[in-house]
Amino acid sequence: MAVYTEVSDDELRAFLATYDVGELMSYKGIAEGVENTNYLVSTNQASYILTLYEKRVKQDDLPFFIDLMDHLAVSGFSCPSPVKDREGQTLKILAGRPAAMVTFLDGICVTRPKRDHCRELGTAVAQFHLAGQNFSQTRRNALSQSDWQNVFEPVSDQADAIVPGLRNCLEDELEYLNTAWPKSLPTGIIHADLFPDNVFFLKDKVSGFIDFYFACTDSLAYELAICLNAWCFERENEFNITNARSLLNAYNALRPLTDEEMHVLPILARGAAVRFLVTRLYDWIHTNPAALVKPKDPREYLRKLRFHQSIKTAGEYGLAQLASGVSS
Amino acid sequence: MAVYTEVSDDELRAFLATYDVGELMSYKGIAEGVENTNYLVSTNQASYILTLYEKRVKQDDLPFFIDLMDHLAVSGFSCPSPVKDREGQTLKILAGRPAAMVTFLDGICVTRPKRDHCRELGTAVAQFHLAGQNFSQTRRNALSQSDWQNVFEPVSDQADAIVPGLRNCLEDELEYLNTAWPKSLPTGIIHADLFPDNVFFLKDKVSGFIDFYFACTDSLAYELAICLNAWCFERENEFNITNARSLLNAYNALRPLTDEEMHVLPILARGAAVRFLVTRLYDWIHTNPAALVKPKDPREYLRKLRFHQSIKTAGEYGLAQLASGVSS
Repeated sequence: MAVYTEVSDDELRAFLATYDVGELMSYKGIAEGVENTNYLVSTNQASYILTLYEKRVKQDDLPFFIDLMDHLAVSGFSCPSPVKDREGQTLKILAGRPAAMVTFLDGICVTRPKRDHCRELGTAVAQFHLAGQNFSQTRRNALSQSDWQNVFEPVSDQADAIVPGLRNCLEDELEYLNTAWPKSLPTGIIHADLFPDNVFFLKDKVSGFIDFYFACTDSLAYELAICLNAWCFERENEFNITNARSLLNAYNALRPLTDEEMHVLPILARGAAVRFLVTRLYDWIHTNPAALVKPKDPREYLRKLRFHQSIKTAGEYGLAQLASGVSS
Repeated sequence: MAVYTEVSDDELRAFLATYDVGELMSYKGIAEGVENTNYLVSTNQASYILTLYEKRVKQDDLPFFIDLMDHLAVSGFSCPSPVKDREGQTLKILAGRPAAMVTFLDGICVTRPKRDHCRELGTAVAQFHLAGQNFSQTRRNALSQSDWQNVFEPVSDQADAIVPGLRNCLEDELEYLNTAWPKSLPTGIIHADLFPDNVFFLKDKVSGFIDFYFACTDSLAYELAICLNAWCFERENEFNITNARSLLNAYNALRPLTDEEMHVLPILARGAAVRFLVTRLYDWIHTNPAALVKPKDPREYLRKLRFHQSIKTAGEYGLAQLASGVSS
């Protein structure tokens, strides 16, 4: 949510001259994405998002992200489409940073998701997973189950200062997940960060996904677990089963979940809560007070974790009805 | 350069429904203006800038700023034009803040102004001053010469920590300006913050001014002094007389400067340097390290002040040629 790298008008004009995108009419730094600098660039032909990749994004991963967006757009899945310069390049250098320009996607993020949004999201996630199936590249999830311990370790002795008992709670949970985490679920390309601010809607239909910079190869059902946490809790952290049922049913209708995926959903949801709990905890403790980005409160994800720890069967997410074929 | 107030999609939709602007297609928080929250709002009809006024802007002043933009736009001076809702209102409330929506202005800010930009700027400033002449409202400049002492006073004992000797330098200068500051120059509406990031260009012509939230009634020539400082120094703070000559000549061609205005220009330029030096000093010392806005370095304006202190006659800004009618 910040402009880390300033681009001068002369630099931008020289950069745009290598593309066939028309004449520059305006550009604004926008508060989109946390990790990178983004400009909304408008020419007399169209609007684009120009991203300058900051240090937190590994440069070696950039071709994967760009190629994935290109693959998805070509497959008909709505997302920003990387723009090629006159030489066919999409990944370039601007103001000393790796940079890429993508098409501008119309749409609005939903601040408070309701049932219908979750149904449309479920459909879109299934379409996204299906579109990713014939993408030839893979990328290891750098924040997979085996990585959470390493994120937590350096901040574990400060955890109790944030919530008393948090250290023990997380150590027990990490140990539990180490044993219980399913190893043989169907895998594929997941977005891995499908929060409401990365999903655009137009007229209550999903108009596309954005911000693919956590995308990786992992269990497809784990994506649903991330979505359950991000879309199916109210502000006061009560679980909204109506939202969950809509999300899961709509997904299942396009890409039916296997019995094992259904069975382990509570474990995946616990893991998805831990993944964001440990990274938010790390950021909370490590954020420089002078940083431009306000860190997110880790406690929200502790409350979600505790909810999932109380779940006995996946039916409590609305999956019983799903399994018996009753649609919401 | 930050989004201080988040606006939810539901709030924005309800807000836009009170206007006749079409259907919302996207909105992005943008890094424009330092004091307020700005969103770029696009509908299926047009794009707009939606501003939420944060606490630093006095609410009582808002009608002046909005009415001024409206007056200028109606007078044919290019600037954002306030959009009226269905009831004819321009100043409204959104997310608990005063808010207004203005038309989107195409154009790009110049990072490194050159002679031609300064010539176009001079013409535009004169047009702006002429367009302001029949605006019926006035607003006292809250950062006029008599206010600088009050801005400096609370930080004076920390000034030497930033530059040794700064306290004495500023105290002497404030005393000098208190005596020397001209009191009977032609006055009118000035923008009072015409830095390059508030002036848009298209095809090397000024496409408009933005950010009128310092606009006030003051000496017209003082605006030129602010522009001299903001547009006519190189990065290493060498004075660029070519830029200055272009700016002053172009302005003078449309609104001829009086002899007194020409004569006192070095004093006005010293004052304009002090005005930004004291506010930057204040912000530098008072900025909360957790603030989203990085304060600007006050030392840049100390170097400009020292340059103007060395000026003997207005001719050293290129005004001799101007006075003798030789154009650049």
